[in-house]
Amino acid sequence: MESRAFQNVIITLILVNAAVLGLETVGWVRDTHAVLLRAANYLFLSVFVVEIMTRLWVHGRGFFRDPWSVFDLVVVAVAMIPPQGPFTVLRVMRVLRLLWLLSAIPSLRRVVAGVLRALPGMASIGVLLLMLMYGAGVMATMLFQDVDEEHFGTLGDSLFTLFQIMTADSWSGVARPIMEQQPLAWIFFVGFILLSTFMVLNWFIAVAVDAFETVALSDEDDEAHASRQSILREVRSLRDDNAAIRADIAELHAALRQQRGS
Amino acid sequence: MESRAFQNVIITLILVNAAVLGLETVGWVRDTHAVLLRAANYLFLSVFVVEIMTRLWVHGRGFFRDPWSVFDLVVVAVAMIPPQGPFTVLRVMRVLRLLWLLSAIPSLRRVVAGVLRALPGMASIGVLLLMLMYGAGVMATMLFQDVDEEHFGTLGDSLFTLFQIMTADSWSGVARPIMEQQPLAWIFFVGFILLSTFMVLNWFIAVAVDAFETVALSDEDDEAHASRQSILREVRSLRDDNAAIRADIAELHAALRQQRGS
Amino acid sequence: MESRAFQNVIITLILVNAAVLGLETVGWVRDTHAVLLRAANYLFLSVFVVEIMTRLWVHGRGFFRDPWSVFDLVVVAVAMIPPQGPFTVLRVMRVLRLLWLLSAIPSLRRVVAGVLRALPGMASIGVLLLMLMYGAGVMATMLFQDVDEEHFGTLGDSLFTLFQIMTADSWSGVARPIMEQQPLAWIFFVGFILLSTFMVLNWFIAVAVDAFETVALSDEDDEAHASRQSILREVRSLRDDNAAIRADIAELHAALRQQRGS
Amino acid sequence: MESRAFQNVIITLILVNAAVLGLETVGWVRDTHAVLLRAANYLFLSVFVVEIMTRLWVHGRGFFRDPWSVFDLVVVAVAMIPPQGPFTVLRVMRVLRLLWLLSAIPSLRRVVAGVLRALPGMASIGVLLLMLMYGAGVMATMLFQDVDEEHFGTLGDSLFTLFQIMTADSWSGVARPIMEQQPLAWIFFVGFILLSTFMVLNWFIAVAVDAFETVALSDEDDEAHASRQSILREVRSLRDDNAAIRADIAELHAALRQQRGS
Repeated sequence: MESRAFQNVIITLILVNAAVLGLETVGWVRDTHAVLLRAANYLFLSVFVVEIMTRLWVHGRGFFRDPWSVFDLVVVAVAMIPPQGPFTVLRVMRVLRLLWLLSAIPSLRRVVAGVLRALPGMASIGVLLLMLMYGAGVMATMLFQDVDEEHFGTLGDSLFTLFQIMTADSWSGVARPIMEQQPLAWIFFVGFILLSTFMVLNWFIAVAVDAFETVALSDEDDEAHASRQSILREVRSLRDDNAAIRADIAELHAALRQQRGS
Repeated sequence: MESRAFQNVIITLILVNAAVLGLETVGWVRDTHAVLLRAANYLFLSVFVVEIMTRLWVHGRGFFRDPWSVFDLVVVAVAMIPPQGPFTVLRVMRVLRLLWLLSAIPSLRRVVAGVLRALPGMASIGVLLLMLMYGAGVMATMLFQDVDEEHFGTLGDSLFTLFQIMTADSWSGVARPIMEQQPLAWIFFVGFILLSTFMVLNWFIAVAVDAFETVALSDEDDEAHASRQSILREVRSLRDDNAAIRADIAELHAALRQQRGS
Repeated sequence: MESRAFQNVIITLILVNAAVLGLETVGWVRDTHAVLLRAANYLFLSVFVVEIMTRLWVHGRGFFRDPWSVFDLVVVAVAMIPPQGPFTVLRVMRVLRLLWLLSAIPSLRRVVAGVLRALPGMASIGVLLLMLMYGAGVMATMLFQDVDEEHFGTLGDSLFTLFQIMTADSWSGVARPIMEQQPLAWIFFVGFILLSTFMVLNWFIAVAVDAFETVALSDEDDEAHASRQSILREVRSLRDDNAAIRADIAELHAALRQQRGS
Repeated sequence: MESRAFQNVIITLILVNAAVLGLETVGWVRDTHAVLLRAANYLFLSVFVVEIMTRLWVHGRGFFRDPWSVFDLVVVAVAMIPPQGPFTVLRVMRVLRLLWLLSAIPSLRRVVAGVLRALPGMASIGVLLLMLMYGAGVMATMLFQDVDEEHFGTLGDSLFTLFQIMTADSWSGVARPIMEQQPLAWIFFVGFILLSTFMVLNWFIAVAVDAFETVALSDEDDEAHASRQSILREVRSLRDDNAAIRADIAELHAALRQQRGS
């Protein structure tokens, strides 16, 4: 089951599925080959369901101990939502099957695991950013609600606009018309850009420092650590040597004294 | 007072206060529940005032030695400004109560403290950036005042426009019309973008190098330092051992000589 | 052949060739000096062909073992495509002759080699990014095809638009009109920007960590490694010393015993 | 001359000069106080000239050995260009007097020196970027000259537009109209953005690695180096100890043999 060949078959199936999903976006293909596409869809789905059922049956309870297995199960569950519903959103969900690649390719697993491991260390700055976004959102809504309803009409609008400003996308196009009526509004915009950029920058540095600590320093220093430990061990054994030497000399001394006594 | 449960109550209160502030941005809520909102506002305010008064009373003068306590006091003082004044800005000030979260959650305190500690080291590059901004602002106003009054009419306009250019937001939309009348203006814009980007980049690197020095290298090297120190100590004790050995031998020699003498 | 002077001649020729290519973009120069430009073109081409032929003749099979030689051969082959074809694209190919500078200047070779060496380590995150782009492309086409045909009409359009969004270029100008008809579309756009930025950031950090590992730590630690090794060697020789000392004492003891026996 | 107080006077003068330059950008101040501004201008200029003359007179030839002194001399020379000429550019030059702050404040000097020291190491990637810009500029002019004369009419236009694209400012607004006529043009734009971003990223990493090598590793490892050296010295002295011990034992042996002989 876990053999290399089987894994390659699964990866190929996911990629073909991805290609079929791509084809489905083309209008005339969707119209002329509707039956074929639906058949392919059911085929992929059944293969994935069979695969996951077999794994469940083989591993039993152990299945749920591996987070990647649970992840696969969720992906398959989402994939089983009937795509013919009234909402396109449900059809779109099938694209999430691509996520199966994450657990099927070991090197991708490792990258994702590494990224997830770095997340908790960034929680604090994330909370700070959320605080800044929410606080600035409430402020902006209160201040600019009446001046620019399109961008700051509701708290939701403000948050979206602030996100746009944070990505530096046409923020001056938002700020300039407001500044014509509230000349001091630049303080808010410039302050928000500086603060949010500064936080994102600190977030970035926190991630980078973390990556260095775990990757760069560890493997180099493992060797240094081992060599220092072996020096320490050698030096300590020298101490034992010295004790033995002193014992030898003491013994010699005793022998000499005994000789003199005789 | 400093117990975990109490802290959680305070954090919950701040979050509820934040939610109420969010509700206040919704027009019909503000209109139909004005009394309720005002009551909630007074409730939060009084809790915060009581909390800070108690702390002041408990710690006495020690209160002012902890910068976070002073910070809380300022936040409460700002929160007490009556929000019903004619200026919306004063109402907006209440959002700053969110800042109390900074001192209420220890991990946020640490992040803020770390960021503040990094600031002085960046002062020099900050001064350079200010110099560049001001110098370029004066230059741009002198050069483009008559060509593009909207963006470079006054020194203030120029500084805002240069900030916009520095964030790479629609700068070509500002530069192209000017270049139609002053073809060499591209030298100023390209030069300013290159210089300011280069400085921000250097600022960023300075912060990153600083973060590494204090975080990444220190804890790894503490261990190396300790192990090197213990090697040194061991080696030095070997030296004492050797001295003892030589003394033993000398004693033995003396004993032998004495024996010969007898 | 490989002498410094010869190399400088080649570099000069490439730079003059670059200047001639620049001149060719000027309409009136192209019209009035067409013959001269064509002659220069043939001259450069023949020099490059002769140079590479000589190298091939001198090194024989060894020529193909050096990847830079093969690179040069490909560049010359591309340069020999007749530029007078109906397609401007073929004329444009001649600009690729500039690439010869890469192999002619040793320090550029090193930079390119360093960059290429870092590539395989980034393959995993690259695959993740491609997955994200393709998946988001299919999703966006399915969701927004009917709403905004210009930006999301086909899968190709969607991929180009997503690339534009990833570079934060006027993404709000794309998102806002769609959000007027599908208010929840912001989830897709904000999610895509956050995810793609996060991945690019991780890619960047991976490259940086890699660069540090190979450059910064190696040369500093070579010295540390050597000094630790010599400490270890010295300490081990002390052990031999100690063994010799104990042998000396044993011998002394034996001599004493023998003396007593006599 | 080099005293702290004197330096503060110079810094104050430069800042006041900067403020006066700022005032000059205000139309009505320039009109009503023209004489005052001109007088202030001459005053500042004469102080700076006197300062630099005194330094020249005091240090003699040594003056020209300090690059900062030469820098100051150039700044003063530029400041002496009469500002009343027909070209505003000459008036603008006076803003460069602000640069004097660089050499007047020691911590700024250090930052600038550090940045300059990092420059040569980046020369190779800089050359690569210039190659990319020039090559892409020629290519773009050849390909898009007839389609979009405004952005790619001449080589100069193309280079400016490519710089705009590199900063990700409204590049899709340039690319989309061209792609309507040349559908494959996206290859050029996407390729250029990816390549230039990748190079800038590598440039950035090169600067960062350099900064770490010189700053972060050096001072931490100085201590480690010293401690390793002292361990080595101690261990070597142990060797001498051992030699002495063996000599002692040999001497003892000789004494014993002599005793036996007697």
